[in-house]
Amino acid sequence: MTLPGQLNPPSRLLLGPGPSDAHPRVLRAMATPLLSHLDPAFLEIMAETQEMLRHAFQTKNALTFPVSGTGMSGMEACVVNLIEPGDKMVVCVNGFFGQRMVDVAGRAGAAVTVLEQTWGDVFDLGRLRETLQKVRPKVLGIVHAETSTGAWQPLEGLGALCHELDTLLIVDTVTSLGCVPVAVDAWELDAVFSCSQKGMSCPPGLSPVTFSTRAVEAIKRRKTKVQSWYLDTTMIQHYWDQVHSYHHTAPISMIYALREGLRILLEEGLEARWGRHVRNQQALKAGLTALGLQYTAVEGRQLPQLHAVRIPAGVDDAAVRKALLTEFGIEIGGGLGEFKGKAWRIGLMGHNSRPGNVLLLLAALEQCLGAHGAKGSAVAAANGVYKAS
Amino acid sequence: MTLPGQLNPPSRLLLGPGPSDAHPRVLRAMATPLLSHLDPAFLEIMAETQEMLRHAFQTKNALTFPVSGTGMSGMEACVVNLIEPGDKMVVCVNGFFGQRMVDVAGRAGAAVTVLEQTWGDVFDLGRLRETLQKVRPKVLGIVHAETSTGAWQPLEGLGALCHELDTLLIVDTVTSLGCVPVAVDAWELDAVFSCSQKGMSCPPGLSPVTFSTRAVEAIKRRKTKVQSWYLDTTMIQHYWDQVHSYHHTAPISMIYALREGLRILLEEGLEARWGRHVRNQQALKAGLTALGLQYTAVEGRQLPQLHAVRIPAGVDDAAVRKALLTEFGIEIGGGLGEFKGKAWRIGLMGHNSRPGNVLLLLAALEQCLGAHGAKGSAVAAANGVYKAS
Repeated sequence: MTLPGQLNPPSRLLLGPGPSDAHPRVLRAMATPLLSHLDPAFLEIMAETQEMLRHAFQTKNALTFPVSGTGMSGMEACVVNLIEPGDKMVVCVNGFFGQRMVDVAGRAGAAVTVLEQTWGDVFDLGRLRETLQKVRPKVLGIVHAETSTGAWQPLEGLGALCHELDTLLIVDTVTSLGCVPVAVDAWELDAVFSCSQKGMSCPPGLSPVTFSTRAVEAIKRRKTKVQSWYLDTTMIQHYWDQVHSYHHTAPISMIYALREGLRILLEEGLEARWGRHVRNQQALKAGLTALGLQYTAVEGRQLPQLHAVRIPAGVDDAAVRKALLTEFGIEIGGGLGEFKGKAWRIGLMGHNSRPGNVLLLLAALEQCLGAHGAKGSAVAAANGVYKAS
Repeated sequence: MTLPGQLNPPSRLLLGPGPSDAHPRVLRAMATPLLSHLDPAFLEIMAETQEMLRHAFQTKNALTFPVSGTGMSGMEACVVNLIEPGDKMVVCVNGFFGQRMVDVAGRAGAAVTVLEQTWGDVFDLGRLRETLQKVRPKVLGIVHAETSTGAWQPLEGLGALCHELDTLLIVDTVTSLGCVPVAVDAWELDAVFSCSQKGMSCPPGLSPVTFSTRAVEAIKRRKTKVQSWYLDTTMIQHYWDQVHSYHHTAPISMIYALREGLRILLEEGLEARWGRHVRNQQALKAGLTALGLQYTAVEGRQLPQLHAVRIPAGVDDAAVRKALLTEFGIEIGGGLGEFKGKAWRIGLMGHNSRPGNVLLLLAALEQCLGAHGAKGSAVAAANGVYKAS
C-alpha cells in the first residue's frame, strides 16, 4: 500500500461544542516519555491527579478518577455501576444527551421512565419531586450542561431531594466541569462524569468520574456483577487506591495531560476561571445578539461555555460553517437531534474562553453571514462589554 | 491544596510486558494540535489509519478500527458484540488473560465452557475440535500471545475448524500485533483485538479491532441491543465508514499516535519487523539461558516479544526488580496469577526489540542477580548470536 505522508493537520481554532483546543502545556505533557502503569513514580502522578480532580469536582469522594475512555464511557460507567437489571431509573430529557442516557440505561437493564422538557429549557424541582414521588426510582439521571441546546440545569437542592426519597443522582457534567461550578459535595451528587476535551483543555480520551459514599455503598450491595468488566469500579478502585492492583493498563499519556490541565486550572483558581467564562460569555452574547442571532436556551439558563443559536432564515448552515473552517480555520458546531440544521453551537471552553477568540469569531462570522448579518456591529458590541468589565 | 510540581518522570526503559516505550516519532505526534472528530482533515487521517491497520492485521475487513479504550476494552467489544444472553461460548484458558475472557463473557450473559491447559503450554487442534463438537458454541475465544506465560498459540487451521462447526472465533492479539504474524484473513479469524502500547510502540489508550464479514453478519442477526452503548459496533461503524455520523468524540491524539506507529511499521515492513523480533529473541534467550534462567513457556512455543522466565530459587523477586528500576532505570514485569512471585516477564516489543536493549538488560540483570547469576557469560552469549546472524 502507499504510505500516507507525515502527520500535518491544518491549523484550527476549535470553537465548537468540543473538542476544544488543548492548552500548549498539555500538548507538551502528551509528548513525555512513558512510565509503566505500576511504576512507583506513576502511582505518585496518579495520586496527584486524583487529588486535583477532587478539587475541580469540589468533593472529598475517595472514588474519584478518570475512566480510560471518552466522555460517553463515563456516562456508561455511572449507569452500569449503579443499575442492576430491573432497577427503576428516571432520566430527564431536554436534549440529545439526555436521550442518550435513556439508551445507555435501557441497555443496562433499567426500567426507564423518561421525564421530558422542551429543548432549551430546564427542569424545576417541583416537577422532579412529583416524578420521584410517583416512580420512586433507584436512580435519577440529569444533564448539567446540555451540549445540544446550551441550557444550564440548576442542581441546588436536587441531591437533597433525591436522598429524601432514597434515590441516587447521576449527573452529566461533560460540558460543565472547568467552566462553571460543579459542587459535588455541596449539591449531594452521587455519580458524576465529565470529559477531558472541554473545560479541562486536554485532548479527548478520559472521562473524570466521582462517586459519593452513598453510591459506593449501593454498589457494594449489588447482587449481580457490573455488566462491564472494563468499567467495573469495584475492581478499578483497587488500582487507583492504596492497593494499586492491576486492572487494565492506564492511558499513561492522557493522565499526564489531565494532570497538567488540572495544574493549569488550579493555578488560575476555580473562582477566577468561572468568572473568566462569564465575562467572555457576555461579550460573545453581545456580539451574537448584534448579529441578530437568537439563543436556543431560555434566558437566564444559558451556559457561559456553550452558545447555541438559531440559524437565521435563508442562511445556508453548511456553507457558513465551511467558510469559517476553510477561510479562517475556525470550527463551530452544527445542530444535533431536533436542532440538526437549525442551530449553531459555539464553544468558549477552558483555555479557549479568551477575548481574542471572541473578537475573531465575531469578525469572521460577520464576514461569512454577509448580507444576512448586521453591519460591523458585532465586534463593537463585544468590545463594549470588555471595556466596561 | 498544594500544587504538584511540573511533570518530570524518571527515565525508564520499559522492558516489561507492556507498556513498551513509545517511538520518539509517536511521542512527537502526540503533541500535535487537535482537530475535531468531524473535521474533513481528521476524517482523512482516520481513513489512512484504518487502511494501515488493515495492512498490519493482514485483512480486508471493512470493520477495522481502534476502540477508544485500552486493550481490555477491545476484548469486551469483541465479546459483547458477538454474544447475546444465553449464547454458548468456549474460552481457552492457559493463562491470566484467558481467565479474564471467561469473566468478560460471563458478564455478557454467555453460557461459558472453560477449556483448560497447563500454563505455559498451548492448545492443539484435535482437542479444540473435540470440544467444539461437544459444546457447539456460538463463539470460541483464545489468546494468541499469553502475556502471563509467554506462550505462543498456533492459529493456523483454527478458523477453518470453527467455521466448519458454525462457531465464530475471537482472538486476543494484544501482545502479538506488530511483533509476530497476525494473518486475520488467511487464518479466518472473526473478531480480533489488540492494543497500542506493545508491538505498535504507541502509548496505551487504543485497542485496534477487526471483525470479519461473518462476524458482522452475526451482529446484524442479533435480537437484542449490544449491552454496551460505548462499544456497540453497529453504531461505531457509521462513524468510521463513509457516513461519518457522530457516535462519541474520538481520542484524536491517540489516533495521531497510532497513525504514526503504523507508518513506522509499514516503513520497516511486516516481514522485516517479524525477523527483527526473532533475531533479538535468539540473543536474549542465549543470554538468559547463560544466566541459568528457565522459560515458563514450552520449548518451540515461546514468543519472541515476551520472555517469561522462572525466578531462581533463593532470589528475591522484588529486590531484583527494584534494583533494575532504581539503579538502571529498566522495568521488567513480575508474574501474574499462578506465576505471581515465581516468574519475570521481559518484553522486547516493537521499537524496543533492539540489540542495545538486549545487551543492557542482560548486563544489568547479571549485576542484580549477583552471586545467583552466571559469571559474565550472558552478554557474551547474546553477542555470539548477533555475530552469527
